[in-house]
Amino acid sequence: MLRPESYAAGSWIAPGEDARAINGPVTGKVIAMAGGKAPDAQAMLDWARNQGGPALRAMGFHDRARMIKALGSYIGERKEELYALNPLTGATRRDGAVDIEGGIGTLFVIASKGRREMPDGQVYVDGGVEQLSRDGSFLGQHICVPLQGVAVHINAFNFPVWGMLEKLAPTLLAGMPAIVKPATQTCYLTEACFRMIIDSGILPEGAVQLVVGGLGDMLDRLDAQDVVSFTGSADTALHLRSTPALMRNSVRFHAEQDSLNATILGPDAKAGTAEFDAFIKEAANEITTKAGQKCTAIRRIIVPADSIAEVSEALMARLSGIAIGDPADETTRMGALASAAQKADVLEKIAAIGAEARVLTGDPEATGANPEGAFLAPTLLQCDDPDAATSVHELEAFGPVSTLMPYRDLAHAARIANRGGGSLVASLVTADPQVARSVALESAAWHGRLYIVGGANAKAGTGHGAPMPHMVHGGPGRAGGGEELGGVRGALHYMQRTAIQGSPDVLSAITGQWVAGAAETKGPQHPFQRTFDEIEIGETLHTDSREVTLEDIEHFATFTGDTFYAHMDEAAAQANPFFPGRVAHGYLLLSFAAGLFVQPDPGPVLANTGLNGLSFQKPVSPGDSVRVRLTCARKTRRTDSYGEVAWNVTLYNQDAEQVAQYELLTMVAYTK
Amino acid sequence: MLRPESYAAGSWIAPGEDARAINGPVTGKVIAMAGGKAPDAQAMLDWARNQGGPALRAMGFHDRARMIKALGSYIGERKEELYALNPLTGATRRDGAVDIEGGIGTLFVIASKGRREMPDGQVYVDGGVEQLSRDGSFLGQHICVPLQGVAVHINAFNFPVWGMLEKLAPTLLAGMPAIVKPATQTCYLTEACFRMIIDSGILPEGAVQLVVGGLGDMLDRLDAQDVVSFTGSADTALHLRSTPALMRNSVRFHAEQDSLNATILGPDAKAGTAEFDAFIKEAANEITTKAGQKCTAIRRIIVPADSIAEVSEALMARLSGIAIGDPADETTRMGALASAAQKADVLEKIAAIGAEARVLTGDPEATGANPEGAFLAPTLLQCDDPDAATSVHELEAFGPVSTLMPYRDLAHAARIANRGGGSLVASLVTADPQVARSVALESAAWHGRLYIVGGANAKAGTGHGAPMPHMVHGGPGRAGGGEELGGVRGALHYMQRTAIQGSPDVLSAITGQWVAGAAETKGPQHPFQRTFDEIEIGETLHTDSREVTLEDIEHFATFTGDTFYAHMDEAAAQANPFFPGRVAHGYLLLSFAAGLFVQPDPGPVLANTGLNGLSFQKPVSPGDSVRVRLTCARKTRRTDSYGEVAWNVTLYNQDAEQVAQYELLTMVAYTK
Repeated sequence: MLRPESYAAGSWIAPGEDARAINGPVTGKVIAMAGGKAPDAQAMLDWARNQGGPALRAMGFHDRARMIKALGSYIGERKEELYALNPLTGATRRDGAVDIEGGIGTLFVIASKGRREMPDGQVYVDGGVEQLSRDGSFLGQHICVPLQGVAVHINAFNFPVWGMLEKLAPTLLAGMPAIVKPATQTCYLTEACFRMIIDSGILPEGAVQLVVGGLGDMLDRLDAQDVVSFTGSADTALHLRSTPALMRNSVRFHAEQDSLNATILGPDAKAGTAEFDAFIKEAANEITTKAGQKCTAIRRIIVPADSIAEVSEALMARLSGIAIGDPADETTRMGALASAAQKADVLEKIAAIGAEARVLTGDPEATGANPEGAFLAPTLLQCDDPDAATSVHELEAFGPVSTLMPYRDLAHAARIANRGGGSLVASLVTADPQVARSVALESAAWHGRLYIVGGANAKAGTGHGAPMPHMVHGGPGRAGGGEELGGVRGALHYMQRTAIQGSPDVLSAITGQWVAGAAETKGPQHPFQRTFDEIEIGETLHTDSREVTLEDIEHFATFTGDTFYAHMDEAAAQANPFFPGRVAHGYLLLSFAAGLFVQPDPGPVLANTGLNGLSFQKPVSPGDSVRVRLTCARKTRRTDSYGEVAWNVTLYNQDAEQVAQYELLTMVAYTK
Repeated sequence: MLRPESYAAGSWIAPGEDARAINGPVTGKVIAMAGGKAPDAQAMLDWARNQGGPALRAMGFHDRARMIKALGSYIGERKEELYALNPLTGATRRDGAVDIEGGIGTLFVIASKGRREMPDGQVYVDGGVEQLSRDGSFLGQHICVPLQGVAVHINAFNFPVWGMLEKLAPTLLAGMPAIVKPATQTCYLTEACFRMIIDSGILPEGAVQLVVGGLGDMLDRLDAQDVVSFTGSADTALHLRSTPALMRNSVRFHAEQDSLNATILGPDAKAGTAEFDAFIKEAANEITTKAGQKCTAIRRIIVPADSIAEVSEALMARLSGIAIGDPADETTRMGALASAAQKADVLEKIAAIGAEARVLTGDPEATGANPEGAFLAPTLLQCDDPDAATSVHELEAFGPVSTLMPYRDLAHAARIANRGGGSLVASLVTADPQVARSVALESAAWHGRLYIVGGANAKAGTGHGAPMPHMVHGGPGRAGGGEELGGVRGALHYMQRTAIQGSPDVLSAITGQWVAGAAETKGPQHPFQRTFDEIEIGETLHTDSREVTLEDIEHFATFTGDTFYAHMDEAAAQANPFFPGRVAHGYLLLSFAAGLFVQPDPGPVLANTGLNGLSFQKPVSPGDSVRVRLTCARKTRRTDSYGEVAWNVTLYNQDAEQVAQYELLTMVAYTK
């Protein structure tokens, strides 16, 4: 008998006397006792707000990203303990991989994105600097900082591990503590993974807590700096969303709820094509993986009217080969639904949808391996008039159930897909990019994700139903209007975007990045002789100037082969609207600039790795001269031995006018 | 007598028999009759969804930006008609400028941002391409497309022109039609401006409609593709937000509501400093502009305890010089509140705040020019224990009212500012960037905007209370949790962000931008000889290859002066972790690349204006050779005669390995 515990304000709390019995879906027998009296909500919130939040915010994005990566490794080393519990949920090992490996993989991707795409500091910079005054003394810049409250994650039963980790990763990266409330039916698996997190000692105290069972009055105690991130049914979402405290305090409420996801077979994907085969395979897979208990599963299969017979035949053939049974048995292809209640709900929905569609395959009486278990045969329906139907577009039968429907033309297909009223994902199988464009323009506004494959890349595709940590997961309308994941985007949902208006020095101090106009400092040596840590933000080198002669231009042209007329032919150059006459090559200026600012000797600055946002602002004519200002703008630790230093580089002519500007990227060693 | 009309489904609708009388705040007499029976909400929604939406979506971002700019010009030419009505609202001409010029200026800035920062097409690209498969055949990309419903704008009474235009600009740029519902008290001024928009004929039919009076049951008819953008009181926001249809359909509800904005005097800004003077001036200005009826006005003045006497003295002196009276009179510095009801509400709030604070100046009985008008003297209170107080942090007296309070140290000041429970803006006056950083880290999460000036840039500053179209306007918690403006960010609130997963060709077809791996085409001539319109997305030039010799490297080093050891000294170069030995300069490679791909003769490609995202991916050693692939990635019309063409450039070595990659920007003529 499993007895999963809550973890509140630093203590494990065993199930109370009024704990609820959880019946396993495979045998129908009680497998766990969980919940009971809710932990003290205020104590949990206080612990998160006063311990976890400040500790996380004291770290930078990269510190937290490393912490998330370490969590992934720690759980990864112990994942077989999770696989051991997985069949109790009704899931096969393959289903479990989506949950367990998917969860761990999400930690790694979010950690990696955090280190590559967020600054090595406490303030995230959103977009460019805005010039708000003519004299440059007053600028604008958007930043994002962690919210100062707590994120309450209310998760669904179907992915006990991934469901927790996919929300924890962006929350922790952002710098917010979290309270995780798993669905009770599968909470023992979540608890096992959560216990690893606590045992690892990787997170600061107060960063995460767990509520097995009910949240009590926790939501009534949330305020403007808190976030609720909910996954589950639309009805529950509506109920929770309406909590007066949430409404009154504008508490962010991210919902990922019902979704009548659709897949469309392109008009080009006739039977016999690789696209057709890929379509059938994916549809069957989406119906049966996790016994169809995925928020992203395909519920509506939209195919050209003249292909529907072939599709239904192929799909039925494929579904008939699915072995249903004990998920612990390796030969089983589809396990049980999560519970008897879940099965009853699905059967009820099938009956309702059945009023507008006929069942092609799937015997509701067939019970699979164990009559006491929550087994259900894959069920395929066909709705011949999807325009008139409503239930097929609105009722989410959360099991191995999908409905086939015909379309006349592509616009009709998109319209049917959009009838879901907002979904997490719609997919399209086609070899024609123009078909993809047409569907995207009609449908993108209704779906959080569009998954499009042809025959050639179907295998490389990550799957209709798999949310990737790189891509936004969530959808408008019926799907809840929320967003999760999407790399750094996911973390921003736990942060406040704030417009900063101030002087260049103020912006630099707040963001930790130098902006043009901010104070310049001079180091004791050439900056290329200074280590990563020695180089200061704002440290500046002003070079000598160098004349650019006509001979230089002609020589450069001959040497490089770039004999563009603007450099070589006075009359032709004058006729060009951008040039007063012959001008220096842009790359000649870049090269001379490097000649001016480079210190030739070995030193901590190891290599120029790239360059951003180069703009040539004013032509340089023969006889003009150039000089360079090189200022350290940004530093980011990259490896154990070196980090990236970005330099703001401006080239001026003899009249102190800017002729070019760019950001130079270098790798700089920590030691000499 | 003014009789402002609604504009519904293409028709003007005069006030009904049950229209409401609007009493002017200057004389107290009836100045207008407005509203009555609400127009047919469903007909308005249908007209927007079926006429306006499709017409707007058929255009691209740049088309719509040009349309918004044209609107700005059209209204600008007729602005004196608006100034003529402005005093009726109680506002002085200077107040009116914030409203009228502010509104027109917002149209111009949003139009300009749209053309500079959004693509010349129908799909906005959000972030970079994600590699979702190892073989590169399956990628991810986020796009944003216009929502397919209608935006309902419910606006406040205080800025009848700006309030409409600041929401219309991002909505129209996004590609959504709007229904504008101004506050009835000042609707005649909104109607006058709205009428100009219709008369101009610049917008497509159905793009905008106006409801003077009540919305009827319009909100009950909204669904997943619609948006409500509300400005007004927190109570009204809560009521509207709770509309069952909005909750059930996850309708986006942007609220900009109560806000107890604070300003903080830095500890360095002692009496006698330029900072101190700037602080007093700005605080007095925020109390009196628009008679304090600004959502961003300073309600709480937080100063060092040891400066509070000097601050109160200076502020009272300044406020005592404010001439209150007829807003049409040029000598008047402060006009009337918007209505007698508004004045009564403010007096009630002053009384409540007065229980925790004492009135320093401002006689509630003083009625200014006309006892029948809604005049109110500037009122300054002082709260000596802001930690214990609550009303001062929670009650928004929407008039010329502010409360002074002392702080002990900077952390205390930030904590007091945050007690507002979420605000639109907090400001700080300091000459010390580290003070700014400290306040920002403590406070940014609680405020939508932080406005920070010193003495040196106070004049260049755009003002504590002025939302700039470049910067986000909105705030967390009590301020409603919404966001408006912020350049392109404002438009994105009227769009759906969708994750696209597919092949390079699919992504290119949907975004209209070439991505690596997508099909390449070959033009009939060198691409530099092709006009902007002739050049196709995906059009590619493969160059010959060129060997890079040791002589080239040495020659380049001598010529440019870049004698960095990695190019010159074999042993030293080998000791560098990035290089196998001596390597070619990155700029030598760029220069040789240009020599390989440039066509020297005059032609439509006029100039290389810049370069983005250059990364050097693999060193090039003496004896290696390089060749170039140049592919048209993106085209953007810029002027009447030329546009920007961005080229994806990749350099390969003799082993077909990528050695460098960048985006090359060129200006290309429309004609030969």
